[in-house]
Amino acid sequence: MKNKGLLIVFSGPSGAGKDTILKKLLEKDPNIRLSVSATTRLPRKGEVHGTDYFFVDKNEFVRMTQQDEMIESAEYCGNFYGTPRKPIDNWLANGDDVILEIEVQGGSQIKNKCPDSISIFILPPSFTELEQRLKNRKTESEEAVQKRLAAARNEILEAVHYDYAVINDTVDHAVDEIIHIICAEKHKVKRDNLLIERILNHA
Amino acid sequence: MKNKGLLIVFSGPSGAGKDTILKKLLEKDPNIRLSVSATTRLPRKGEVHGTDYFFVDKNEFVRMTQQDEMIESAEYCGNFYGTPRKPIDNWLANGDDVILEIEVQGGSQIKNKCPDSISIFILPPSFTELEQRLKNRKTESEEAVQKRLAAARNEILEAVHYDYAVINDTVDHAVDEIIHIICAEKHKVKRDNLLIERILNHA
Repeated sequence: MKNKGLLIVFSGPSGAGKDTILKKLLEKDPNIRLSVSATTRLPRKGEVHGTDYFFVDKNEFVRMTQQDEMIESAEYCGNFYGTPRKPIDNWLANGDDVILEIEVQGGSQIKNKCPDSISIFILPPSFTELEQRLKNRKTESEEAVQKRLAAARNEILEAVHYDYAVINDTVDHAVDEIIHIICAEKHKVKRDNLLIERILNHA
Repeated sequence: MKNKGLLIVFSGPSGAGKDTILKKLLEKDPNIRLSVSATTRLPRKGEVHGTDYFFVDKNEFVRMTQQDEMIESAEYCGNFYGTPRKPIDNWLANGDDVILEIEVQGGSQIKNKCPDSISIFILPPSFTELEQRLKNRKTESEEAVQKRLAAARNEILEAVHYDYAVINDTVDHAVDEIIHIICAEKHKVKRDNLLIERILNHA
């Protein structure tokens, strides 16, 4: 019998390299699924329902929230965003691990609704390094970069509420450390109620 | 600045392969120290004070226990055995990880005295496999093996009080999993109070 999968809350400041890490992690571990958010905003060109987002109207979103079908939700620029519980529960029941990439502020909501979840915070090696990375993108004005850095500083302070912190010194190293964390969590005795019985009675 | 090392309580039934795993683990990770017990029994030929045991007399043992210098102790066949706290604290302060191989019954005493410690329980792949291993040793009578198996069954039931369980299917696999557990524990945010400060202020 398969054990239940692991729900992993995944956060970090802009510029810490979350997306690159996630891409490599999903390549390395085919057992990991990426959670898809629901939103009331209209699909952009090329966005696919169920892959990029679940696109729902406001009434449906409100109904889902009221009936506790979302494990977290937030409003942003007049649109609602949230994480539907059902697809996650299905994956977990199937033994798949599910990653929930989420804003730092939303992370704490999950722990209350899903006490079995774990949370991982991705950190840059240093704030100076983060500054350098954001500046090297050269897609934003100095002012925008400074704004982003101020936000990042506040986000990093929230790491204290997470279970694990992984420093993204190199992507490969960070990915390996996340894989070790997932492996360790699966060896927690409390996650496997039937372990002892299985060992004692297995022929 | 070095982080404090990790205290690892390590238990499992006879025949689960603890000693083989420990030997390989110490070879693979030079940062791990093995705790040395204190005992009131006399040294056997070839045993070295400070390596095999700390040999102390009964008065000294009682004094150490009364002054809370032992993190666990027990009496066995008229002799006292215990784990002195000081060498462990020194290693941990130096950033070394310390493994405490201990009888299943003693494991729970440690968690009370050292809440930062973690505990790992080594399991055989199945009880049938354990039976086979013990019988293959061919050093004991059938009766002695049956006694050992009955004890092992009770010990395995205690795994529920441990943080992690590792199944010794192959020694290399089990050692790798223990290394992953240690790695993951070191990424716990609560183990590194200065992490966020270091990231934010590191030039």
